Formats: sequence, structure tokens, C-alpha cells
Amino acid sequence: MSGSRPRDEDVAAVEAANEALYAALEAGDLDAMTDVWVSGADADDVQGAVCVHPGWPLLSGRAAVLRSYALIMANTDYIQFFLTDVTVEIHGDVALVTCTENILSGGEAGEDGEPGPLLGGKVVATNLFRRTSDGWRLWSHHGSPVLTGGGDEDE
Amino acid sequence: MSGSRPRDEDVAAVEAANEALYAALEAGDLDAMTDVWVSGADADDVQGAVCVHPGWPLLSGRAAVLRSYALIMANTDYIQFFLTDVTVEIHGDVALVTCTENILSGGEAGEDGEPGPLLGGKVVATNLFRRTSDGWRLWSHHGSPVLTGGGDEDE
Repeated sequence: MSGSRPRDEDVAAVEAANEALYAALEAGDLDAMTDVWVSGADADDVQGAVCVHPGWPLLSGRAAVLRSYALIMANTDYIQFFLTDVTVEIHGDVALVTCTENILSGGEAGEDGEPGPLLGGKVVATNLFRRTSDGWRLWSHHGSPVLTGGGDEDE
Repeated sequence: MSGSRPRDEDVAAVEAANEALYAALEAGDLDAMTDVWVSGADADDVQGAVCVHPGWPLLSGRAAVLRSYALIMANTDYIQFFLTDVTVEIHGDVALVTCTENILSGGEAGEDGEPGPLLGGKVVATNLFRRTSDGWRLWSHHGSPVLTGGGDEDE
């Protein structure tokens, strides 16, 4: 399928898989997050999932990646993602999604139970999906903090 | 080719392509860097190259990516990469390389012409290659600063 133009339905399916990643994190739903990622059954030739959270070293393997999300969910009261600049490129059975994650998250609550302050952040992500018998599944997620305007982008 | 086990020669070719990326940057050789990336002729279905330098927003398209490297080369007196934790996974005509870039670079020279100080840095990279008629070419490079030990890695 190399070089073939992506079909509209493939692009839509990849976009939905990408949105499912962020929806799972917003909902703090580890089961849903588990469904987002490639499983061993779909990845007999590879060690599987690869994940870099902003500022973190690389996490390799499905178990390590899912543990990291469990940790993040346990330490996050509130998080919301506003995705911008979403692009999808498909090459054979692999899809590359790029997007900017505009993140609104709740800071730690006060001792009196008052909600914590809302914090904003901007992360650029490259998300790699593979076509499996169960649909598109996440192979690699790499998010990194945007620290500078850099280059010639209109930031 | 989905699910097929990567052949040794494919893995070796991908590793060589990955090393060529860093060799081009070390040598400040923009022509060599140009050869590393997918070209329009090899990428009829996509906008092509995608690149995130550490802390930068996303750069999209071969022209923008190569301009960024020209800028980096013009502002870098000395840079050397020691790659560790290199892994290669191949799925069809796409290869994902992960590695840690241990970077040694020269700071700005003094006004008296004395060499600047040597600076160290650590970056985690996910590099995505595509098999083309001219061999494996870089489709996406995403490097991000490692700011924390994070997770359960032995950092």
C-alpha cells in the first residue's frame, strides 16, 4: 500500500483513535487507555508501546506505559486537552498524527477542600498508530514541552 | 508485510540511516542532512517531513525542516552525539527508532577567540523512517529534553 493516498475513512478512524487517547486521560479511565494502545497480540514482531511524556525519559513496553498513565491519573484532579493543528499522514498500515495539546489542568486542592488553581500548558505531540485487526492502535506517543517560539512558525 | 519479523539487513540499514542523521549534524553538512530526509518524490501522499527540536514547536514540510537545520548549523561551533539505548522496530515500510542523545556541544567562543565551554545535554528521540526506492529516509524526528527521572526507568 506504499504511496497510496489515504482514504477518507482511514483518516477519520485515525483521528478518532487519537481523540480516544486524550478522552481516556481526561476521564481518568485506565481501561479506556489500555484499549488505545497496541497489545502484545497485535504486535508479535515488536516490543510494543513506546511513550515519552513531556520532560520524561522514554518508557518502553505496554506495562511500563500503562503504569505511567495510572500514576498520572492518580495525581491529576482535573485535566482537559484542546487539540489544535491536528494533521494525519498514513503510510501503509502506519499513521502519523501531529498535534498541539493545549492543556488546562487543575492544581493541587487546598487543605480546606477548595479547588486548586487552573494551570495552562502547551505540548507538541507526535502520535504513531498502527492498523490492527481491532482498528488503529497507538504504537508511540511523544509529547514535549514547547519552550520557545523557535524557527519560522507563527507562534 | 504487517506482523512480519524484521530482517537483520533491514535493521542494519535503518540503524545506518539513523546514524547518518547525527553524522550530518555533527559535520554541519546540510547536503548530507538533505539526503537523510524523505523527499517530495518519495512522499506523494503526504506533506512530508515533520520535525520537533527539543523545546521547539513542530516544524512541518521538508523546506521548513531543512531551514531549521541550516540555522542550527550556523549557530553551532561544535556538537557531538553519543547515542545510547538505540532500538529499532520495523512495521511494513515504516521503522521506528528510539534513542537517547547524549550531547556534547561547544558554547559560544570568547571575544579573544578562546574556545567556549563544553556543554552537556540529554535528549530522548523518536525517529521515524520510511522505506523508499533510495533506501530508508527520515519521515519524522522528535527530540525532547529529559528534565526528570520520571516513571520507573533507572535514570
